Amino acid sequence: MGTVVARAPDMVSFAAGYPDPDSFPWDEFRQLGDELLSGKDAGVLQYGPTRGFEPLLESIVEVLAQRQIRATLDQVTVTSGSQQGIDLVGRVLITPGDVVLVELPAYTGAISAFKNAQARLVGVRQDEDGVSVDDLDVVCLRERKAGHRVNLLYLVPNFQNPTGLLLSLRKRRQLLEWAERRDVLIVEDDPYGALYFDDVAAAADTRPMRADDVSGRVLYLSTFSKTLAPGFRVGWMVAPAPLIERFETAKQSVDLMTGSLDQRMVQEAVRRGVLERLAPQLRHLYRTKRTVMEQALREQLGDQLRWPAPKGGFFIWATLPEGYDDERLLARALQQRLVFVIGSAFYVDGTGHNRIRLSFSASPPERIREGVRRLAEAMKPVAVGAESG
Amino acid sequence: MGTVVARAPDMVSFAAGYPDPDSFPWDEFRQLGDELLSGKDAGVLQYGPTRGFEPLLESIVEVLAQRQIRATLDQVTVTSGSQQGIDLVGRVLITPGDVVLVELPAYTGAISAFKNAQARLVGVRQDEDGVSVDDLDVVCLRERKAGHRVNLLYLVPNFQNPTGLLLSLRKRRQLLEWAERRDVLIVEDDPYGALYFDDVAAAADTRPMRADDVSGRVLYLSTFSKTLAPGFRVGWMVAPAPLIERFETAKQSVDLMTGSLDQRMVQEAVRRGVLERLAPQLRHLYRTKRTVMEQALREQLGDQLRWPAPKGGFFIWATLPEGYDDERLLARALQQRLVFVIGSAFYVDGTGHNRIRLSFSASPPERIREGVRRLAEAMKPVAVGAESG
Repeated sequence: MGTVVARAPDMVSFAAGYPDPDSFPWDEFRQLGDELLSGKDAGVLQYGPTRGFEPLLESIVEVLAQRQIRATLDQVTVTSGSQQGIDLVGRVLITPGDVVLVELPAYTGAISAFKNAQARLVGVRQDEDGVSVDDLDVVCLRERKAGHRVNLLYLVPNFQNPTGLLLSLRKRRQLLEWAERRDVLIVEDDPYGALYFDDVAAAADTRPMRADDVSGRVLYLSTFSKTLAPGFRVGWMVAPAPLIERFETAKQSVDLMTGSLDQRMVQEAVRRGVLERLAPQLRHLYRTKRTVMEQALREQLGDQLRWPAPKGGFFIWATLPEGYDDERLLARALQQRLVFVIGSAFYVDGTGHNRIRLSFSASPPERIREGVRRLAEAMKPVAVGAESG
Repeated sequence: MGTVVARAPDMVSFAAGYPDPDSFPWDEFRQLGDELLSGKDAGVLQYGPTRGFEPLLESIVEVLAQRQIRATLDQVTVTSGSQQGIDLVGRVLITPGDVVLVELPAYTGAISAFKNAQARLVGVRQDEDGVSVDDLDVVCLRERKAGHRVNLLYLVPNFQNPTGLLLSLRKRRQLLEWAERRDVLIVEDDPYGALYFDDVAAAADTRPMRADDVSGRVLYLSTFSKTLAPGFRVGWMVAPAPLIERFETAKQSVDLMTGSLDQRMVQEAVRRGVLERLAPQLRHLYRTKRTVMEQALREQLGDQLRWPAPKGGFFIWATLPEGYDDERLLARALQQRLVFVIGSAFYVDGTGHNRIRLSFSASPPERIREGVRRLAEAMKPVAVGAESG
């Protein structure tokens, strides 16, 4: 998708979940770069420990404390983006043929990482407040009865990619009990938690399951990519210390370490309060963009599209009218110089062709409105019957 | 090892193959950082294509041309250090149980990456001028006769880690013919090629096999870690275009992309001639350090240690006298506040206990001399008989 967009200058992209680059704290980073690259500390450009730059690990522990997660240094590792965290989970914890439970729909990067580990991906239905715990149990027991190992459940509880759904606190508690009862590990992937929209949600609603995990059942992944900048590729992972050691060993032969300058830039930005200062601004920024997209969609496509109101994050997850197909609509949209992600990309069961994911995070307001106009244009003649008849 | 060294301030480290941080072009990088972080180009901190920042790919093609390798853009991908290149080879090309042929000894990072891919690692003997082509053929045929798939040979032809050996040009030609005859792919890992010592070697001696590979049998890996700085984690891989596509797909679910700022810093450093200006200085620097270590070793341990004179790179590979054991010697050395890497770590056949790898790259001359003094001290009482008797 990145390639398509780069090559067509007037393309509007609702595709990639890119943060708004105008939100990056450029001045602070330029200042930090200047200080870090003075040559006084050789470690800034040198090899370093696979687990991560220790002051960054300490800063991460503080960030976790603000999210109500108590973690010790030996329970944390830096990862090269949280994508690497997902990949390491696949490498270390999945034996080919194991079942990994994912939501219907689920983040494509997790789907492909677990597929690469040769997992058998099995989908679980969602309700309005996140994954269905009832369906989860049914699916888990069914798979076990069929002789499969079921050890892992992958979730994005806060403003899920692609649906934007917020998992309710009630369900978070139920899931912890369920994981204990069924002896399953939960991979809690939380890139968007800090980006709640304060007209419809509060920080307390995003409380990670890891905060209430007393038995080490939750592996928590997060990242600075959506708050500071994705170009640094700095994420992290929280898990019981013996597991962290196994992830570290795997990471060592994967990429030796995460970039040194990147880790220092992020660590200094956290230490100097840049992240904390930025967070309310980001919440306001993305809330505004969400409003722009929702208003434009209501005005122009309110009678055709339906979507759950996102309470945070980057995405609107729209259901198409009867007779529309995500792939055909994308082809039409590209002719209008608009790109988005087809819904079926997020489903492990082959469904989802009546959905599309629209990202409002990267584009300025006027481009969001223009993109919605193009979407409305693309939707006009696309009824399946008309096209294939 | 990094941890041990960091925690003991007076430790001399001959262990890690770190470049000398005084050689990093700090002023140039600070200037580049200042320009890149101005905010004018959002891409500096944004997500970008998995294959790499296109101007960097173009710069890599130019670097390759200087090494006599003709490559087109679609035959190159950026990797997060060349370690990731090795790991991607393992993921994409190895089926569990496949044989990967490696030298005796071989780079530990390759051993662990291929082991993670569940390869069966089989060792091939070395001569003074690199891998034994005769033994290679014997081992390959023996493994195939035993029913194993043998598709990959991993080599570091230039100043091998750990031996420092330079593969002769004659053997490079023989290996290309052999790979064709036996239908094997060669993974040519070349981190040190630019760092030849011009009193004993010339650029022409480091000519990559990939330069003469007409049938796409050589996958070429390299990195900016030993010349610009390892903290950026920017390496690359050259392979036939269809293979590069498969590596790209794998990389996408591994870490999405290599750091954006890192890629830009490296690209600008290449474009502005920093790399080219630096190379002769680095050759001089490491040649000088090699001389310091060799002289100190000759003076203090000349009657006990033997080693092949390195013609480039970072390492001296020493054979211990009869009765000495690498692990016991390391234990004694640590008491003297000296650390190195035990020889047996580099052998896939359980041997190598009579060798040690001494890295001269990171320490200043006086620390190299001090380290050799400590090594001489550590070697005094270590005869196996005396200790265990």
